Amino acid sequence: MTRSLDVCLTPALIPLYNVENYIVVVIDIFRATSSICYGIGNGAEAIIPVAEVEQCAAYRQKGLGYLLAAERNGEVVAGFDFGNSPFSYTAEKVAGKTIVLTTTNGTHALHLSRKAKKVVIGSFLNLTALCNWLKTQPENILLVCAGWQNNFNLEDTLFAGAVIEQLKTGAYTLDDPAIAANDLFHLGKNNISQYLGKTSHGERLRKLGIEKDIEFCLQVNLTTAIPVLHGERLVKLV
Amino acid sequence: MTRSLDVCLTPALIPLYNVENYIVVVIDIFRATSSICYGIGNGAEAIIPVAEVEQCAAYRQKGLGYLLAAERNGEVVAGFDFGNSPFSYTAEKVAGKTIVLTTTNGTHALHLSRKAKKVVIGSFLNLTALCNWLKTQPENILLVCAGWQNNFNLEDTLFAGAVIEQLKTGAYTLDDPAIAANDLFHLGKNNISQYLGKTSHGERLRKLGIEKDIEFCLQVNLTTAIPVLHGERLVKLV
Repeated sequence: MTRSLDVCLTPALIPLYNVENYIVVVIDIFRATSSICYGIGNGAEAIIPVAEVEQCAAYRQKGLGYLLAAERNGEVVAGFDFGNSPFSYTAEKVAGKTIVLTTTNGTHALHLSRKAKKVVIGSFLNLTALCNWLKTQPENILLVCAGWQNNFNLEDTLFAGAVIEQLKTGAYTLDDPAIAANDLFHLGKNNISQYLGKTSHGERLRKLGIEKDIEFCLQVNLTTAIPVLHGERLVKLV
Repeated sequence: MTRSLDVCLTPALIPLYNVENYIVVVIDIFRATSSICYGIGNGAEAIIPVAEVEQCAAYRQKGLGYLLAAERNGEVVAGFDFGNSPFSYTAEKVAGKTIVLTTTNGTHALHLSRKAKKVVIGSFLNLTALCNWLKTQPENILLVCAGWQNNFNLEDTLFAGAVIEQLKTGAYTLDDPAIAANDLFHLGKNNISQYLGKTSHGERLRKLGIEKDIEFCLQVNLTTAIPVLHGERLVKLV
């Protein structure tokens, strides 16, 4: 039986899909899902994605076990432990800890995807482990790009194309966004960093002085951990 | 001063743009905007786009001057004069006539774009005339892809990329969707028909037996007419 391998280019388009019929992979390369994969790979017990800074702050009252991560428009919100930089998610800092994370785009996509059969987290850091696991699943797959302010961005789409590249030998039907994502990946794959350098988002992140984060997030297969959503929490898929 | 040259990949994303700040080009290659360009080029007095079949039917009561064109999911609605096939928009059939047109995707995009500084219609059939005119305009430009059922499709995106190709020597800033559209155009430009052959939409249209329409819509520069929205009516830009 042919399965669907579809790409949802922005969270604004999620309502067009019956997410109930899919395993959803949420993608927010710069930098939420990269940091989540790295953090779970480094032994974080769980990462709790929340939509609003206020919801994150509320965990301060719930006990001492939480690290609070809040970022808006690429910067750490005052009073929080850290933001989205993957360098904050080292084993030293996160092992055994539960992190409450709020981000501009990634959390939004996660919340809109909750009704899927399963929601997992993708990034270049866990690319091949993710693809190998997806290949074993008999379900339709929807790659959800978190994008930028509900609109399309190139980095998330390119990563979706990288996943398709590993899966497309299987018996999947691709929708038009999936075909486009895979074609764009082919254009950029030999130097993803350079290819993304021309985008508005890369430009904006560079202005924020986080080039090191960008290079970090483009590393491939740094971990085999696949974060999966259980209730409110992202935990390691076992 | 740098102007923006942006691409809105689907009508669902129009709310992300302040269309008031743009000249909007509406694109629905298969087949609404191709037929509109051809019809206006062939001397149709006006084409009135409406959203619902019932609105179209209502013009039957208003007098004898109207040709009624209604299509849903690629087929002419029973009782109407014709649908979206460009072969219905010959000079013989449409010269001097006003056509009331309802389509699945194109009209939807048009209605959501009405508040723009100006709304014009693009297709391969009037590509170079359209681009030459756009070059003379000091405004930001938003290329709105009608897409398919509110989602991304390749043919409209590729055409947006073709417009960008002619304009990008000018002083425009491209957003990420514009960069992607132009890259996809480069991938497909040597054989657009073949490139689009792999898409879901092309497949679906082939099943409807309208391959001839598809080939027709991919012809370049068949007319210099640029349809422009005046109130409710699309007329020839002069």
